[in-house]
Amino acid sequence: MSSYVKRFLIGRPLKSHEAGEQKLNKTKALAILSSDALSSVAYGPEQILLVLMTVSAAAFWYSIPIAVGVLVLLIALILSYRQIIFAYPHGGGAYVVSKENLGKYAGLVAGGSLLVDYILTVAVSVSAGTDAITSAFPSLHPYNVPIAIGFVLIITLLNLRGVTESASVLAYPVYLFVLALFILIGVGLYRIATGQVSPELHTSVGTPVAGISLFLLLRAFSSGSSALTGVEAISNAIPNFKSPAPNNAAKTLMAMGGLLALLFSGIVLLAYYYGVTPRAEVTVVSQIAEETFGRSWMYFFIQGTTALILILAANTGYSAFPLLAVNLAKDKFIPRMFTVRGDRLGYSNGIISLGVLSILLIIAFEGQTEHLIPLYAVGVFIPFTLSQTGMMLKWIRQKPEGWLLKLIINTTGAVISFIVAMMFFLTKFAQVWPVLIFLPLIILLFYRIRKHYDAVADQLRLTTCEPPLPIEGNVVILPVAGITHVVENSLNYAKSLSPHQIIAVYVPFEREEEVVFEKKWEAWQPDIRLVTLYSPYRSIIHPLSKFIDTVQRKAQESDYQVTVMIPQFIPKKGWHNILHNQSSLLIRAHLLYRRNVIVTTVPYHLKK
Amino acid sequence: MSSYVKRFLIGRPLKSHEAGEQKLNKTKALAILSSDALSSVAYGPEQILLVLMTVSAAAFWYSIPIAVGVLVLLIALILSYRQIIFAYPHGGGAYVVSKENLGKYAGLVAGGSLLVDYILTVAVSVSAGTDAITSAFPSLHPYNVPIAIGFVLIITLLNLRGVTESASVLAYPVYLFVLALFILIGVGLYRIATGQVSPELHTSVGTPVAGISLFLLLRAFSSGSSALTGVEAISNAIPNFKSPAPNNAAKTLMAMGGLLALLFSGIVLLAYYYGVTPRAEVTVVSQIAEETFGRSWMYFFIQGTTALILILAANTGYSAFPLLAVNLAKDKFIPRMFTVRGDRLGYSNGIISLGVLSILLIIAFEGQTEHLIPLYAVGVFIPFTLSQTGMMLKWIRQKPEGWLLKLIINTTGAVISFIVAMMFFLTKFAQVWPVLIFLPLIILLFYRIRKHYDAVADQLRLTTCEPPLPIEGNVVILPVAGITHVVENSLNYAKSLSPHQIIAVYVPFEREEEVVFEKKWEAWQPDIRLVTLYSPYRSIIHPLSKFIDTVQRKAQESDYQVTVMIPQFIPKKGWHNILHNQSSLLIRAHLLYRRNVIVTTVPYHLKK
Repeated sequence: MSSYVKRFLIGRPLKSHEAGEQKLNKTKALAILSSDALSSVAYGPEQILLVLMTVSAAAFWYSIPIAVGVLVLLIALILSYRQIIFAYPHGGGAYVVSKENLGKYAGLVAGGSLLVDYILTVAVSVSAGTDAITSAFPSLHPYNVPIAIGFVLIITLLNLRGVTESASVLAYPVYLFVLALFILIGVGLYRIATGQVSPELHTSVGTPVAGISLFLLLRAFSSGSSALTGVEAISNAIPNFKSPAPNNAAKTLMAMGGLLALLFSGIVLLAYYYGVTPRAEVTVVSQIAEETFGRSWMYFFIQGTTALILILAANTGYSAFPLLAVNLAKDKFIPRMFTVRGDRLGYSNGIISLGVLSILLIIAFEGQTEHLIPLYAVGVFIPFTLSQTGMMLKWIRQKPEGWLLKLIINTTGAVISFIVAMMFFLTKFAQVWPVLIFLPLIILLFYRIRKHYDAVADQLRLTTCEPPLPIEGNVVILPVAGITHVVENSLNYAKSLSPHQIIAVYVPFEREEEVVFEKKWEAWQPDIRLVTLYSPYRSIIHPLSKFIDTVQRKAQESDYQVTVMIPQFIPKKGWHNILHNQSSLLIRAHLLYRRNVIVTTVPYHLKK
Repeated sequence: MSSYVKRFLIGRPLKSHEAGEQKLNKTKALAILSSDALSSVAYGPEQILLVLMTVSAAAFWYSIPIAVGVLVLLIALILSYRQIIFAYPHGGGAYVVSKENLGKYAGLVAGGSLLVDYILTVAVSVSAGTDAITSAFPSLHPYNVPIAIGFVLIITLLNLRGVTESASVLAYPVYLFVLALFILIGVGLYRIATGQVSPELHTSVGTPVAGISLFLLLRAFSSGSSALTGVEAISNAIPNFKSPAPNNAAKTLMAMGGLLALLFSGIVLLAYYYGVTPRAEVTVVSQIAEETFGRSWMYFFIQGTTALILILAANTGYSAFPLLAVNLAKDKFIPRMFTVRGDRLGYSNGIISLGVLSILLIIAFEGQTEHLIPLYAVGVFIPFTLSQTGMMLKWIRQKPEGWLLKLIINTTGAVISFIVAMMFFLTKFAQVWPVLIFLPLIILLFYRIRKHYDAVADQLRLTTCEPPLPIEGNVVILPVAGITHVVENSLNYAKSLSPHQIIAVYVPFEREEEVVFEKKWEAWQPDIRLVTLYSPYRSIIHPLSKFIDTVQRKAQESDYQVTVMIPQFIPKKGWHNILHNQSSLLIRAHLLYRRNVIVTTVPYHLKK
């Protein structure tokens, strides 16, 4: 049954060598890997205006130079990540770059913060998209959390179906959003150019404003930089590209950078010329759209695609998280299961973990995830800074052809990213401090896991350990609950192995039982030794364990191996199991984990 | 750790022969077995007045003849259950009596409704007691559900500690309640006798009232009879008494009957003379207490002990449910685990099940369990009717000395109980109908369980089945995941059993792996046959199962037994398990339940 449901939801399993067919072309890759970055256009410019508004509306002209700053940072990041793509064509992004150039610790800081960040991405963007939808249909507002969870489940399922299938479904909304914004910016600029927008709506650039400070401008700048989150996703996901993967990834990255730059500057310009003031109920993009088209269908088209892309931004997390997890798991910092491909060749454990964790976040914050945004932004700029610093060191060490230009690009990126990250700590410490707690914790966890895996490998390796103990003979202990076919069956099996000795063990709770059973056994199996262990406290496991310990101590002296053989009848139907005391299961679990004995389960299948 | 917590909460384990010391004397038995019945005094009289009020306050005098009716029923029930105690001195009450005299079906109807009823008792009485407390401290009202759950947990723990210990703790409040009510009734009657209560407050008995009908009077009577729930508890719990158990139980029953009769008539009389009208916010007992003592400390003492006894009424369920469950489990109608005694010699599975189920009920009804009361009352009067009818048949069949008097007593009880049960169906069908659904369902379930146990016993019995298959030799299949100490260890063990053949099986996911591994194996263990099963869909279980099926088909032809030997390394700490793919566990579960192979787990304990 469950297997049919699985097939229906995620499709037939794929063979390993079909992996090639699951790769992305540039169009689809751009759609699913840039949705996060592009969606930031919907709130990035607003973040700048929100900070400037704390001084006065006259300060809005500063959004122009600030936007220029953001564009510079964007260019530095894009060029820098382009270099990373070619230098590390197998993906891994900030984690791999930091690890290789700055050492394990830096790598883990970058990897840990990105890992958490992708979970935040999913929770934050789905919540934001859901908010956009329920703002349009207020009657849905009480159902924010279930709706958001529903979206996460849909995106998770799509990703479990595989990268190409999710790309096919998700590409349309992304391109529709880009189209919608291009029309909006085009029409808007045309209206400004033709003088249809009153020039009194904006103060001209350079107007002196009282109360403005460098600190405030830096704060506005770092807020605006939150529009750049998601830029690193492509460098993490290179293995998802059709070959030549690095070339295709680089081209996709440049396209994304171009689109992001155009849309971002367009929205900032329109907001400036329209003199838009951020309002609690209506977003800046919504105000621009209404100003430009009125409440026409174009307005609703823009609003609708914006809501969609906010939700789809989550998908970037789904592309990057599992691949980052694979890299971390290969280095044994997180459980090995993250390297296993699922039925559809996606790294399903990564996909499912991401879905589950982001749903938990949505539930924990009851869908109000806005105050996670700064946390999320700082979690991006830390790895940005580390990876670019890593690249700087790489160029300085290796000095390849044209390294000076490369060094300058990465240095610019590193410096600006560092400033942005610091600004978040300085200006929004109240929201950002958890990073200082969970990052060390995650890195500690990574280390503990790595240590365990190393210890295991060490102990399993044939060359490094002591030779195995010789086995000169076998002793079989057979716990019996009565004289039945189940016991008879196990006894026959034990005899067929012709061990040195078979000991049947019976645990009576009453003295009278003991005698009765001994007599019955003597009549039935006079050749097999029976030991009864009277248990006044009505426990089976304790006297049995003690007895096994005794037998084992003796057995070890002559290099004999002890096997506990558990007769178990298997009912015909699953629900029947609750009708039987599961002593055999308990005994098995107890012995296997506590004692060095071999446990054999001899099933006796009931037919009705 | 968990074992220390257990010891702390429920005490040291007791030996089986210490059971005698866990028996109850009459004083303690009266306290813990009659709390349910006595607590009904707190609401029974009110139920009568509530029905009469629908006509007019003038009809309140009818409460006197109705109370007389209830007393007649009480006497009939007490005498009847006294006869049951001596006839069935091993307990079991309505279930055993109905089963033996009216047949299995009647027994199951009685047993099933009592089983459900005890769960309702616990939920209803704890909720009522909690309500009484939070009415006194309104700030606690939002925490009704957690408080009620807390009380259930405390009572469950006390009962897990053992019958005598819970009796020692719970006896005080019960006797305090009885004392409080006696004082109240005594002082009240004195005031009436000395003329301190205005005679104008009550209409005299026999005043004609317009609109009164037989139907209404019967309804008032059946509502008042809800005060008699809990009367059967003693006959269920005879095994808990010190010997001579039947005599002590009978004396306790008479004492309870006497107390119940006195308190019930006292409260009805006072309510009549004081002219008390039921009010939504204040209970009848509270009104009487305030009228008698004013808001003095006696008033609060009465209120406090009343709240306590409502909660303790739950304890009656804890005494009777596990013993009824033992009887049903011995007859194989419910899972066998209910016959197992816990560390403290109580039937802990019954106690825990009762606690869990009543907590679920409290949560499901959010602590508002009042509308379960009629359901609960009808669930008592069905077994009342059945057990008395059973006793009637017994006397007619066996005709012992003085049987005619016994027959008359039981016939009176049976007729009145039947009328009460019918009145519940006629007058409160909206609240009582679920009985008609869940009773048949429960009985169906009982039957299914019994059928399964019978089938199992049939198949296990040595005399009735075909002789076991002979085992001429053994084939061992050893799934290997690599060349490690874990595999080496298992291989050594397999060799020591000197089976006919050992086949190592490796499941590679890639064609290249296959060749590499085969070469390595050839170099390491040239004598052991290796089979590789290339799995393009990356599943281990499916190709392995298929292979095992093939081997088994061949093995069966020559009566060989197939053993699958699973190498498993056991990490040093429990949490390490999540770091390893639990393939061996999955393989084991799959093989054991689906295939007729023996599964041996060879543990390899890691040391760090």
